[in-house]
Amino acid sequence: MQLKDVIKKLALITTVASVLFTPLIVQAASAEYKWKMVTTWPKNFPGLGTGANDLANQINEMSNGRIQVKVYGAKELVGALEVFDAVSRGTAEMGHGAGYYWKGKVPAGQFFAAVPFGLTAQEMNGWIYSGGGLELWQEAYAPFGIIPMPGGNTGVQMGGWFNKEIKTLDDLKGLKMRIPGLGGEVLKRAGGTPVLLPGGEIFPALQSGAIDATEWVGPYNDMAFGLYKAAKYYYYPGWHEPGTTLEALINKKAFDKLPKDLQAIVLNATKVANSNMLAEYTARNNAALQSLITDHKVKLLPYPAEVLSQLKTLSDEVVAEEAQKDEMSKKVYASYIAFRDQAVDWHAVSEQAYLNARNPE
Amino acid sequence: MQLKDVIKKLALITTVASVLFTPLIVQAASAEYKWKMVTTWPKNFPGLGTGANDLANQINEMSNGRIQVKVYGAKELVGALEVFDAVSRGTAEMGHGAGYYWKGKVPAGQFFAAVPFGLTAQEMNGWIYSGGGLELWQEAYAPFGIIPMPGGNTGVQMGGWFNKEIKTLDDLKGLKMRIPGLGGEVLKRAGGTPVLLPGGEIFPALQSGAIDATEWVGPYNDMAFGLYKAAKYYYYPGWHEPGTTLEALINKKAFDKLPKDLQAIVLNATKVANSNMLAEYTARNNAALQSLITDHKVKLLPYPAEVLSQLKTLSDEVVAEEAQKDEMSKKVYASYIAFRDQAVDWHAVSEQAYLNARNPE
Repeated sequence: MQLKDVIKKLALITTVASVLFTPLIVQAASAEYKWKMVTTWPKNFPGLGTGANDLANQINEMSNGRIQVKVYGAKELVGALEVFDAVSRGTAEMGHGAGYYWKGKVPAGQFFAAVPFGLTAQEMNGWIYSGGGLELWQEAYAPFGIIPMPGGNTGVQMGGWFNKEIKTLDDLKGLKMRIPGLGGEVLKRAGGTPVLLPGGEIFPALQSGAIDATEWVGPYNDMAFGLYKAAKYYYYPGWHEPGTTLEALINKKAFDKLPKDLQAIVLNATKVANSNMLAEYTARNNAALQSLITDHKVKLLPYPAEVLSQLKTLSDEVVAEEAQKDEMSKKVYASYIAFRDQAVDWHAVSEQAYLNARNPE
Repeated sequence: MQLKDVIKKLALITTVASVLFTPLIVQAASAEYKWKMVTTWPKNFPGLGTGANDLANQINEMSNGRIQVKVYGAKELVGALEVFDAVSRGTAEMGHGAGYYWKGKVPAGQFFAAVPFGLTAQEMNGWIYSGGGLELWQEAYAPFGIIPMPGGNTGVQMGGWFNKEIKTLDDLKGLKMRIPGLGGEVLKRAGGTPVLLPGGEIFPALQSGAIDATEWVGPYNDMAFGLYKAAKYYYYPGWHEPGTTLEALINKKAFDKLPKDLQAIVLNATKVANSNMLAEYTARNNAALQSLITDHKVKLLPYPAEVLSQLKTLSDEVVAEEAQKDEMSKKVYASYIAFRDQAVDWHAVSEQAYLNARNPE
């Protein structure tokens, strides 16, 4: 081989090698993308915090560690209610929370968390994944450089903890209650005072009397916070949060840097976490509920039918009014309500008719 | 540079290049694993067939083409009801169907598809993913070399198509009806004759009078098959299939050959497909239902409350008896019923109470 041939070959191989080096890095065991996920939940909090961990783990495993997502509990990196800003700024590449926590910044976000007398978990997934909801949600968060995805669902939440019986709508008057989002606006219309507190601050506030009442999630979570130690009556159903969708927030610039397969992995991991969390709540809530009733002598009560009916009237008014406050909320509301109307019709002959046939009241 | 230095450098780069070539192949567009997925559905059939396509696509995308799954409709490679055998033999690495189609081989499989007066979609996911169901399912299919996963859910199905009104339980007597699985056994107990037909054969059988009645899925699918052209009355709710789980079957030997990240991708892709399908049905069924009523003059009717109550009594008897026929079914039944009992209690204060508050009957 002559020198010039060797040099030619060398040049060729060098070119090939330089092409190959990019894939090599992608294949390496050490992470190519080190991401932080900030959350609104206490670290490892059952269901919510562990749901955020689950999302991170799915990404880590499916990407073979090419992305490594590290999860931070509330206050570890930023405060519980600062998650949205942190992801928007790029302080963290991902976040886990719920849309109503930052309604001051993006009011339309509330519709993707929970709407009083709105969509159940199954219906939320129908609207978001297959009914045009996701496109609107992404449009609403685009100005903040955030891609939102459903990242968990609690199912129908409970109606809340009280220290007095709720016999008429008037019993809500003057009540200082921890209740976020649109549900809080409805309480205000009913004469109460809604308070926004992150989960970790609810129990001390209820125990000290800083608030009179609270809702949180459901038996599995409410027991974990020990709410039964500070209130006696436990009401159902959660008219204000019928299928709360938690959100996985992704910083768009960070997302755009990923190759297509990792983008698909991140987005699908949010779907897996969304499904896993609802399954967990469905499997765990009843044992906790029975323990609350039996071991902790909690008094489980339904809201009177008339109170629910009045709350529904108020809710429909309040939600319609709130939706008129900005253009994005208007668009989201129109889509949401159209979906709800058809979901009510469909589930009248499917889910609702079936549940009533299986367990006649 | 001297020749010997050039040669040294060349040797080094060649070594590096040879190391790099392995990752290169992994990264290459050509698949490392070419898989076939056989299905019980007509190719591209809305919801079911497209759901199988969705599953394949998720795997292809998340793996960056390292696995390429090609989907075959019923009869393209094997018959609709031969999917289980084909995956067991390894003729295909994956399959998409439902557990009641092969109840002759593995009776316990029916519990993972649909049980009369059993679990809804949300509850099935709760039981399977978080309530011990998946472990039992995988145990039941292990002797066949198959790993099962939920691969789609239709939600509550419709009660079926009839050419006469169902006023009393006696109206089911002598009826030749297409209805698979445990629902079919209940029909038999009520004096009817259950017939097992794959979806693609239902319409001609109903039109020719080979069967008197049929159930299939719900408005979105039933309209696609044109069932309204051969029957007039459309009953609800689907007491026999309250949340039908479709199954993704994976040949265990093929699965074991995958590296861990691809295994995670395959399993999570089934979860994504499972969630996507239910979202699609939830979003599409109502428009189809309204079209059936308005455009095709279908008469939508509820089963009389007494008929549902009698069917529930029969169902509980039949399911308990069927479960005693083999050891695996016994174990699965015990787990299923325990989960159902607690799900009924929990959903009485959550999903059911909420649906009734939102839409009082």
